[in-house]
Amino acid sequence: MTQLEIARSGRISPEMKAVAEIERLDPEFVREGIAVGTIVIPHNKNRSAEPCGIGGGLRTKVNANIGTSPDFPKVQDELDKLKVAVEAGADAVMDLSTGGDLGAVRKVIIENCDVILGTVPIYEAAVKSASNGSVVHMSEDDLFRVIERNAEDGVDFITVHCGITRESIGRLQEQGRVADVVSRGGAFLVCWMLGNDRENPLYTRFDDLLDICRKHDVTLSLGDGMRPGSLADATDRPQVQELIILGELVDRSRKAGVQAMVEGPGHVPINQIVANVQIQKTLCKGAPFYVLGPLVTDVAPGYDHITSAIGGAIAAAAGVDFLCYVTPSEHLGLPGPDEVREGVIAARIAAHAGDIAKGVRGAMDWDLQMSLARKSLDWQRQAELAIDPIAFKKFRSERATSAEDVCSMCSKYCAMKVVDEYLHKK
Amino acid sequence: MTQLEIARSGRISPEMKAVAEIERLDPEFVREGIAVGTIVIPHNKNRSAEPCGIGGGLRTKVNANIGTSPDFPKVQDELDKLKVAVEAGADAVMDLSTGGDLGAVRKVIIENCDVILGTVPIYEAAVKSASNGSVVHMSEDDLFRVIERNAEDGVDFITVHCGITRESIGRLQEQGRVADVVSRGGAFLVCWMLGNDRENPLYTRFDDLLDICRKHDVTLSLGDGMRPGSLADATDRPQVQELIILGELVDRSRKAGVQAMVEGPGHVPINQIVANVQIQKTLCKGAPFYVLGPLVTDVAPGYDHITSAIGGAIAAAAGVDFLCYVTPSEHLGLPGPDEVREGVIAARIAAHAGDIAKGVRGAMDWDLQMSLARKSLDWQRQAELAIDPIAFKKFRSERATSAEDVCSMCSKYCAMKVVDEYLHKK
Repeated sequence: MTQLEIARSGRISPEMKAVAEIERLDPEFVREGIAVGTIVIPHNKNRSAEPCGIGGGLRTKVNANIGTSPDFPKVQDELDKLKVAVEAGADAVMDLSTGGDLGAVRKVIIENCDVILGTVPIYEAAVKSASNGSVVHMSEDDLFRVIERNAEDGVDFITVHCGITRESIGRLQEQGRVADVVSRGGAFLVCWMLGNDRENPLYTRFDDLLDICRKHDVTLSLGDGMRPGSLADATDRPQVQELIILGELVDRSRKAGVQAMVEGPGHVPINQIVANVQIQKTLCKGAPFYVLGPLVTDVAPGYDHITSAIGGAIAAAAGVDFLCYVTPSEHLGLPGPDEVREGVIAARIAAHAGDIAKGVRGAMDWDLQMSLARKSLDWQRQAELAIDPIAFKKFRSERATSAEDVCSMCSKYCAMKVVDEYLHKK
Repeated sequence: MTQLEIARSGRISPEMKAVAEIERLDPEFVREGIAVGTIVIPHNKNRSAEPCGIGGGLRTKVNANIGTSPDFPKVQDELDKLKVAVEAGADAVMDLSTGGDLGAVRKVIIENCDVILGTVPIYEAAVKSASNGSVVHMSEDDLFRVIERNAEDGVDFITVHCGITRESIGRLQEQGRVADVVSRGGAFLVCWMLGNDRENPLYTRFDDLLDICRKHDVTLSLGDGMRPGSLADATDRPQVQELIILGELVDRSRKAGVQAMVEGPGHVPINQIVANVQIQKTLCKGAPFYVLGPLVTDVAPGYDHITSAIGGAIAAAAGVDFLCYVTPSEHLGLPGPDEVREGVIAARIAAHAGDIAKGVRGAMDWDLQMSLARKSLDWQRQAELAIDPIAFKKFRSERATSAEDVCSMCSKYCAMKVVDEYLHKK
């Protein structure tokens, strides 16, 4: 039985219990969320990663994408990034490899990954076809075989762009777009569908997909192939059309006992983010929402960990459950370990800021402890509480002060310190 | 006459004309905004910085704080940071020096500063008293002499914590706070007032302050000495009490023909930011709002350029007019040039993301041009349009690709590229 089927039967699985403990919530709250589909615990039966719940009422989680590319196919580089990502606090990792022997890369990454792991199976099928001439020659059976292998290997959640259909592509063609399709998996499918004049096999054979996922309890992450890659394309008809279709597929997944979450944008102006979250929650009946960004401007390549931290924080505050990190390298190249680290920390900041706003249990306590340590000039405790103790110590050591209890910005004029004598003398 | 008096007389000054041109707005719109007080052009009569308008309908501006500290008193370091800040795109700079010969430091910085410049005059008066024993011994006349010298030297705007009064301190004492007072100028005044059992001279002698400002057309930046330094203290009674008082002082400034803006928080959870902007706009009758942050979490020292970019973007989208940058060093030490640069870029990202959301003229055009360049794989044009072309080129060169038209993340599987053949073949 899948976690969803167990929850629906009224029972609490060890994973539900573990998630409830981590989140300091009642196990029954977690069970009920899973039963109705507002919470998922991606947890492939074939392996046992750290239990991680994603959804309503839980801490907002952070995913880090790693993976080879044709120009950088070395698996060791990706293992280094995996280590950095998990050490920096990523709750989940996705292997998005497109370079080298993809099946072998995936296996090595899975072996070395303690957190939940996701993949985008179409990459392997498409890359294989491309190397034989063209993505257009990919066979449906090949695609489903790859999906099955991913499930057997122990992948906890898979991104499948089932909402790229004739209908959503038609909306795109009818409307036009500045940046067309920027999802890699989405782009492969668009090429395949238009090149073959066929409907998306992930849509037509959605029941086959559900069979595989139910068997191994792989959580579906319904991908947003139509996510806007430019502010000018945000919240447009192809995007919302795809989301409607994904909402229907959430219903079908739940009926089949398969856990499902939904992926979202992308490049979105600040004033459209809340609307994006709200329509996802209505159209997809409260399914966990997993966003890439949103990036609130197009003009800051080199700083897209910041543009996405802004959007991600607003999105999390509005109800998003799962943030995919964006690194400073986005739009420029494959990230290295430093960018992975920065990306994870920026996304964690966004997630935590969102959690404070939406009242996640315990979120504000962390900030209160930090403020108390700050007020009492307890630098050791501040370092322990910092979201990144390494950065904390680096900055502090680089700028030595004449007095140990203050910092070099104000030194003896430290506001925290000077008012104490007068405000609290009684 | 001050810019406010000129505007009220119905005339358009050369500075108003210049601001209108920069912002691509009707000069009459700018004049009217200044006349009613929703726009200021900080522009000391004794020097001529680049004209810069701040307020409703204009691009959100960014300020960079520089200045010596007791532990780092070298003026050359600050000149280096000034250069970095302006090159990175800061619209304004504040000299917050508290180390070395403050009058001399200020003069050198003013000589080398092309953008509008602000100061916090109480620092000089308080530091002088402190070196003679205690801040509490500062004389009122000394404070006003320093203010006058700042005005004569050509400072365009001054932060004065006029709202730290017996009333607002009483509210603080009555309520209690986690982090008490974190504003340095505010802290000096609290010590002075409680130590001497006297009312704030910047409040009791506000008319003297107005006389100085009117004479030189120095814009008042009414400081928020009660800004929260912990999420737990956000939007509390001392903060709002002070804001009410500042609103009354905005009225008095306007009556006296003195331009005024109002400073704001600080550490504020995401779900309280919009309310903070809205109450400032009502209590202060639309005066330009200048915020430090807001920082949306307390737990990320080393990354407070990101926590404040999140808050600043939300604040700007909600109507904030002027963002004070926060650097990665905040809460840890005095920033160096690298942190200054990162702080300015992060604040510019926040300001621009806010401008898109609030519909500032021309803001979206920039993003559209970038997206068009991205879609056409024109990397040269993308570099030119990037908010930081230096970072753009660094990342791109570090990760070489096999093909010049794509990047190393997807290489030949570039979504932008692969769909073109199929989507646009007709």
